[in-house]
Amino acid sequence: MEKLLNLMGESTRIERALEAVLAEAVGPDCPPRLAAALRHALFPGGARIRPRLCLGVAEALGEPRPALSLAAAAAVELLHCASLVHDDLPCFDDAPLRRGQPSVQRAFGEPTAVLVGDGLIVLAFEAVGRAGAAHPELTPPLLRVLAEAAGPARGLIAGQAWESEPEVDLERYHRAKSAALFEAATAAGALASGAPPAPWAAAGRLLGQAYQLADDLADALGEEGDLGKAVGRDAALGRPNACTRLGPAEALRRLDGLIAQALASLPEAGHRAGLERTFREFAERLCPPALRARCAAG
Amino acid sequence: MEKLLNLMGESTRIERALEAVLAEAVGPDCPPRLAAALRHALFPGGARIRPRLCLGVAEALGEPRPALSLAAAAAVELLHCASLVHDDLPCFDDAPLRRGQPSVQRAFGEPTAVLVGDGLIVLAFEAVGRAGAAHPELTPPLLRVLAEAAGPARGLIAGQAWESEPEVDLERYHRAKSAALFEAATAAGALASGAPPAPWAAAGRLLGQAYQLADDLADALGEEGDLGKAVGRDAALGRPNACTRLGPAEALRRLDGLIAQALASLPEAGHRAGLERTFREFAERLCPPALRARCAAG
Repeated sequence: MEKLLNLMGESTRIERALEAVLAEAVGPDCPPRLAAALRHALFPGGARIRPRLCLGVAEALGEPRPALSLAAAAAVELLHCASLVHDDLPCFDDAPLRRGQPSVQRAFGEPTAVLVGDGLIVLAFEAVGRAGAAHPELTPPLLRVLAEAAGPARGLIAGQAWESEPEVDLERYHRAKSAALFEAATAAGALASGAPPAPWAAAGRLLGQAYQLADDLADALGEEGDLGKAVGRDAALGRPNACTRLGPAEALRRLDGLIAQALASLPEAGHRAGLERTFREFAERLCPPALRARCAAG
Repeated sequence: MEKLLNLMGESTRIERALEAVLAEAVGPDCPPRLAAALRHALFPGGARIRPRLCLGVAEALGEPRPALSLAAAAAVELLHCASLVHDDLPCFDDAPLRRGQPSVQRAFGEPTAVLVGDGLIVLAFEAVGRAGAAHPELTPPLLRVLAEAAGPARGLIAGQAWESEPEVDLERYHRAKSAALFEAATAAGALASGAPPAPWAAAGRLLGQAYQLADDLADALGEEGDLGKAVGRDAALGRPNACTRLGPAEALRRLDGLIAQALASLPEAGHRAGLERTFREFAERLCPPALRARCAAG
């Protein structure tokens, strides 16, 4: 079974793992509307970049425990989707669309959207608990890395909460809102493979910073549809934006620098080619040619 | 240290464990408003009956791993508090008060209340991850018991979701909304002590059913303030209520029967006295003398 999993592509493995998590959750006792909303929150997905980074690190390390690294990857994506569903709530962004379809709150209403976000958080940890049964010694550290990346101390929840504070600590805001889960993705891939997570976490952190910069670029210069979300929100809401502050050319230079740094920071490992490909694809997705041209044009 | 913990009373241990979880969460990187709201959600607490049941089972079994059973108890309470904070949101009960003080949503606003609930869920699993490092073999099963009790398949989240379904499956609703976490509390106390959880879970399930019955009694016959929440809500919202259906005398008889069954179902164990005391205190709290008199008067 684990051999077979290895022969599938990363993306297929991730979709199947999320399907398996969902199948466990939406059994006969699950309220039907909630079940439909959970599916809506997970499929179709976006680029699944965070779980791909997690699996990419595991593969670079020879992926000695494929079921565990896949569960870690699924957990990372579940936490990401949970944060999207809650960010879209009326009391935050009140977003009508997500990934080109109605957001969960629009399609199923606010109460169900609250519960879907809650449910995805629980399912993330449950997935680790299931796969961890065969590798108990790795379960507590995996749990902690994921909980920290999601949690109120310095994870996604802290990041979202900064938006409700009277004064925003911008560096902490970005670190929590964007970098924490990228960092956890690469750290979890290493942990699930029995490797020390710190050097891999560093690469994830740099990619998270690149993601934040790209998000600012797209908001300042992008066109509706590039990222599947509204643009010009920072200017409209008076939020700080690196592209506005630095100018588009300098912001792009820094973005490219962060990706190069992330690649250079990767520890030596046997099977890094796939992970390096994922990094480059990610960079391309962060700043697609049309946006790059707009940046260069200033 | 573990000896010292054992000498403290259950309640003190639980409050200190929750304080320790909170202290980890609200470090220098936590947004200050979120930190204050997390504290508000946890303190002062209610009866802490679920974590006391968890610890009571562990103590009945000689509590061989006090730090782990205490973490499990804290996790159970954190999941309970998370569900209270989200149930109180404007899109659900829009409750102004909780435990005699303004609800989190009233005191801190809706966005922060969403994030507090999310954060408490994450902290519950993080607490297990921390304490589990010393007992990794018990971490995956503990995780799963807690995740199932909270989750969308048949836990608290499923229970709350039944309230948004066009048709309610009443038995599943009550099992998910009330019994699941009681069951997990006793099961987790056994698991953390290395004992098979099933026989202890049964007692928890019966107490959960008793809790549901008592909730119906209080709603139908109670006075504002008995349970620190509004009464007459079932009748106002057209929700089914066991007291209305069975009559108060029969409902009380069944409640007493469930407590007796729960006591009788307890497995043989060395130090059951404390747990039995907790059961009786719980029964008294569920149906205090004044409410009992009103039941008997029909």
